[in-house]
Amino acid sequence: MKIPPVKGTRDFYPPQMAVRNYISDGWKSVSLRNGFVEYDGPIFEYLQMYQIKSGDEIVEQLFHLTDRGGRELAIRPEITPTLARMINQQINALPRPIKWFSVPRLCRAERPQKGRLREFFQWNIDIVGVDDILADAEVVFCTLDYLRSVGLTAADVIAKISSRKLLAALLLHLGIAEDKLDALYPILDKKAKLPPETFAQMLTEAVSSETAVHTILALLETHSVGDIQSVVPNVTSNSQAQAALDELHQLFDYLKAMGVADYCRFDMSIVRGLAYYAGMVFEVHDAVGDLRAVCGGGRYDNLLRDFGGPALSATGMGMGDCVLEILLRERGLINEAMFKRQMDYFVACADLNLMPKVLEIVAQLRAAGKATEFSCKAANLGKQLKQADACGAKQTLIIGQEYLNEGKILLKDMKTGTQQPIDESYLWDTLSD
Amino acid sequence: MKIPPVKGTRDFYPPQMAVRNYISDGWKSVSLRNGFVEYDGPIFEYLQMYQIKSGDEIVEQLFHLTDRGGRELAIRPEITPTLARMINQQINALPRPIKWFSVPRLCRAERPQKGRLREFFQWNIDIVGVDDILADAEVVFCTLDYLRSVGLTAADVIAKISSRKLLAALLLHLGIAEDKLDALYPILDKKAKLPPETFAQMLTEAVSSETAVHTILALLETHSVGDIQSVVPNVTSNSQAQAALDELHQLFDYLKAMGVADYCRFDMSIVRGLAYYAGMVFEVHDAVGDLRAVCGGGRYDNLLRDFGGPALSATGMGMGDCVLEILLRERGLINEAMFKRQMDYFVACADLNLMPKVLEIVAQLRAAGKATEFSCKAANLGKQLKQADACGAKQTLIIGQEYLNEGKILLKDMKTGTQQPIDESYLWDTLSD
Repeated sequence: MKIPPVKGTRDFYPPQMAVRNYISDGWKSVSLRNGFVEYDGPIFEYLQMYQIKSGDEIVEQLFHLTDRGGRELAIRPEITPTLARMINQQINALPRPIKWFSVPRLCRAERPQKGRLREFFQWNIDIVGVDDILADAEVVFCTLDYLRSVGLTAADVIAKISSRKLLAALLLHLGIAEDKLDALYPILDKKAKLPPETFAQMLTEAVSSETAVHTILALLETHSVGDIQSVVPNVTSNSQAQAALDELHQLFDYLKAMGVADYCRFDMSIVRGLAYYAGMVFEVHDAVGDLRAVCGGGRYDNLLRDFGGPALSATGMGMGDCVLEILLRERGLINEAMFKRQMDYFVACADLNLMPKVLEIVAQLRAAGKATEFSCKAANLGKQLKQADACGAKQTLIIGQEYLNEGKILLKDMKTGTQQPIDESYLWDTLSD
Repeated sequence: MKIPPVKGTRDFYPPQMAVRNYISDGWKSVSLRNGFVEYDGPIFEYLQMYQIKSGDEIVEQLFHLTDRGGRELAIRPEITPTLARMINQQINALPRPIKWFSVPRLCRAERPQKGRLREFFQWNIDIVGVDDILADAEVVFCTLDYLRSVGLTAADVIAKISSRKLLAALLLHLGIAEDKLDALYPILDKKAKLPPETFAQMLTEAVSSETAVHTILALLETHSVGDIQSVVPNVTSNSQAQAALDELHQLFDYLKAMGVADYCRFDMSIVRGLAYYAGMVFEVHDAVGDLRAVCGGGRYDNLLRDFGGPALSATGMGMGDCVLEILLRERGLINEAMFKRQMDYFVACADLNLMPKVLEIVAQLRAAGKATEFSCKAANLGKQLKQADACGAKQTLIIGQEYLNEGKILLKDMKTGTQQPIDESYLWDTLSD
């Protein structure tokens, strides 16, 4: 009986696996050169863990199950709760700074859409326990260091940066009650996803004052830190807002020093839905703007405390593989040629009786670290040379009796097509180079 | 509120993650040099898929769930059903030979024991569609190529090899009915796990004839292909058995040619429980014999057909990370020093005003591919040098005003401890080497 894969999941055949590896290997190597160290947790956790951070609504979006011991578990939809749990568990033993990355496999029981699947991979970087805006700069830089490394320029992607601290100060300044803020953020976060009228209406329902709505709408259009004062003239008198502005200026100065200013832009419409963000927030979008965010992140407080730990501040970023892959393909930055298979040697057998000799050479080449293939299926020389070509062999060694009688092997360079007999000993000599 | 990890799962803090990466990177690089290409499937599949291969009992050992659409799903306990499903789906489009590997994360709802956890990683290699015993030799060789590459010698591990084809022929020869064989294999497979009397009793219950039981017990003690004839004198007259014996001789000849004969031993007690094995079967055990099998595999027929595809023969192997890691630790082949963190540079800031200069240098080093760390937290020079040491920096660049005034940076070699001022331009010149 024929069974299909589950909707919203992917089969990684060798060509798709090569692309997945290209993406996750890139994430890993950039993380390492930026001083992050790798961690991972289990694929499932107690269901409750996700409710702590995201409330009961999250249960709908989770693959959850009850095990034989009656435990309610869920396949992880994100790794941040696991990160919080793990750090809390060893809070006093962990070497500081805690600068960690992970490339977890995650699952969400959502309706599959373009750039959003039920199973995906996500690059996460987090710096825990460092309040300084320098750590935020480091997170944004590391993100851009990766995107730049795969060929995305400032003409392809934009890092839109804002500050929850600034937004909160301005909203309070406009007379919004402090206890209304947490409910307001998810609404503000929807701006880009809704028609302007719908958004304005939702905002008016949430904020009673007409003037406040008007000012908020103007603020969300602000794309320069300097422009804020023209929307909220007396902002300089507000010390909270001023501190947040100073911090943002500092952040942009650092990013400029790091050589990524051309990728970065202040954008007050970046809010991030979750209540737990408390400082810098950012998202990277494709410049055309027709895809979902490539990644998002920011500074979050209290997460560790919510999981039974101390009140450590942290800043981080998460980037999924789905939107990224679409973008890389659209920009022509992924192509088949990048993933062409390569083997160092193919060893061809001109006479089945010589198979033990073929195997001896194959095994020795592999033990010397050389990627070496041969045909497990009896086949004529022509077929074997085709297989050598198909597996990307640079050189083919042909083992035939007449050459072997003279201690020789026929060496065929697969690029030039030239053939020449070489001493078998010469092969081993060149290997040790 | 403090939440624990789920029983039988592991948290991979950076030191544990380094060990996991060491193991899986080794699996991957040996697979590639042996000509296997990587694939992967989703973490969950339709529950039914696992019932096809292993019957309803498997449901007990699975983490299964019902999604919102009412689909019965299960977290994969093994990847072979996924392999069969994927190959069937593209049977006509896939380049041959199908020589694939994977390192899936798997979950089984078992009681955690030494070497057996509820979540683990398993290296899988499979050659599909090649009947030749050469393919079996290739699978055994690739397995041993890995074990040898991590330092395990023939004194540490033994590949115990047998043949289901031979076993079936001998059992039929002894008068066991063909329809009883599938039920007999799981019993024979339990030999090593049961006290001799219990095993003999189970065997007697399954096989009515006393003589047959006696001969089977003697056969299971056979450790040389040549000894079979002394247990079953008229075996040469049985063409099925003789063909299986010839194939085994061929297999051992090939393994000898590949230079791994010292690891390999014929052992008729290796049966493998599942009904689907149909040719060579093998397991690698630690030489001391106090651990579970390090890995197991063999030739299996009909699996693709059971999943709605053609009757292709295949041969493969699966190796979990848990027993392997225990063995490597016991043999002293894993130690902390192997995983010491290494960074190329640490850039220290002698004066907070110079942070933009520090960041500029950090960013340029990273863009040049150099692993570079700095302190995101304001700290005095002594603390920064300690951090440089802790992250394994080979060199520390100290940015101070008096040196900078002369276009210089202080370079500290972390191994020798020597310091010398260098021209900043000299740094960039050496990078391009």
